[in-house]
Amino acid sequence: MQPLKEKIRQEGKVLSSEILKVDSFLNHQIDPVLMQQIGQEFARRFAEDRITRVLTIESSGIAPSVMAGLVLGVPVVFARKRKSLTLTDDFYEAKVYSFTKQETNSIVVAKTHLTEADKVLVIDDFLANGQAAEGLIEIVRQAGAELAGVGIVIEKSFQEGGKRLREKGIRVESLAEVAALSEGKVTFVGDNE
Amino acid sequence: MQPLKEKIRQEGKVLSSEILKVDSFLNHQIDPVLMQQIGQEFARRFAEDRITRVLTIESSGIAPSVMAGLVLGVPVVFARKRKSLTLTDDFYEAKVYSFTKQETNSIVVAKTHLTEADKVLVIDDFLANGQAAEGLIEIVRQAGAELAGVGIVIEKSFQEGGKRLREKGIRVESLAEVAALSEGKVTFVGDNE
Repeated sequence: MQPLKEKIRQEGKVLSSEILKVDSFLNHQIDPVLMQQIGQEFARRFAEDRITRVLTIESSGIAPSVMAGLVLGVPVVFARKRKSLTLTDDFYEAKVYSFTKQETNSIVVAKTHLTEADKVLVIDDFLANGQAAEGLIEIVRQAGAELAGVGIVIEKSFQEGGKRLREKGIRVESLAEVAALSEGKVTFVGDNE
Repeated sequence: MQPLKEKIRQEGKVLSSEILKVDSFLNHQIDPVLMQQIGQEFARRFAEDRITRVLTIESSGIAPSVMAGLVLGVPVVFARKRKSLTLTDDFYEAKVYSFTKQETNSIVVAKTHLTEADKVLVIDDFLANGQAAEGLIEIVRQAGAELAGVGIVIEKSFQEGGKRLREKGIRVESLAEVAALSEGKVTFVGDNE
């Protein structure tokens, strides 16, 4: 997706060979116009899939998911990283290890917001080792819902998460696929083709 | 704002005289169409204020803020509740006590995303005791930015946050003002007038 790749080239900060910081438009500050374009693109790619719900995870997955949900005409559910006192229902729960934060969180979704009647589009901001996506997919499985696929804003294709999901037969649609991070520069898959 | 009040009446769950749960459209599941209407209403109310940035807090403030930012044509910054390893810049920081979670968090905003040139609209999902809003306002103050006002989706007018902010001369625009929660029922300010 061209506008996203351009934004990453212009504003992404390569902090190491593994870390790309996009705090100026996705992870801390949000560019609403770009989020709208991203939402439209996810909706276009899954237009024929009769999606009934978008499932994401707080916090950075929310903005692209809400824009996708708006175009698809379906509600968005965001998994919470821990239980809050105002969540009193029963939950689906999965464990997610964050390499960035070096900690394991439970992610939870109230059973009332995801059922076996749902066809789910999972959306997240980044796909690296695939921990978050696999946690969300586990929750879809627990609900007995159908997984239509996974929509990712930025996939770090040099890490193994995307490969592992695709090997399981899961459809993964990534809007920007980063092939390498080196010397302050982002290389996308297909850049030199 | 009528569609919001109707949604609260239909789907809000009164858990006690102080707790209103709106997990079906705002705090866990999100209704994107309602969020768009909310964003449009915030943008309408602050249309003449030359807003340059919307400031909110993760996670439930993000959806209404992104919709408001889209209509206003400005970026949205969400304060993070703790430092993440990928945030390496200098921060504005404020302490926020959550009555719901019974804990104090630091909320942080990178200095690169808020400056003295900004005119800021602070948006949050709930206004109860006002802790989160006051933390965000403190961050606006630290940045030397101008505060245009505070936009709130649901104000619990029987708690003191809104009163305290208005007494300081801060403009507070709440889209639904809850006067009381009792016997499973929500009463809005102005219901019996």
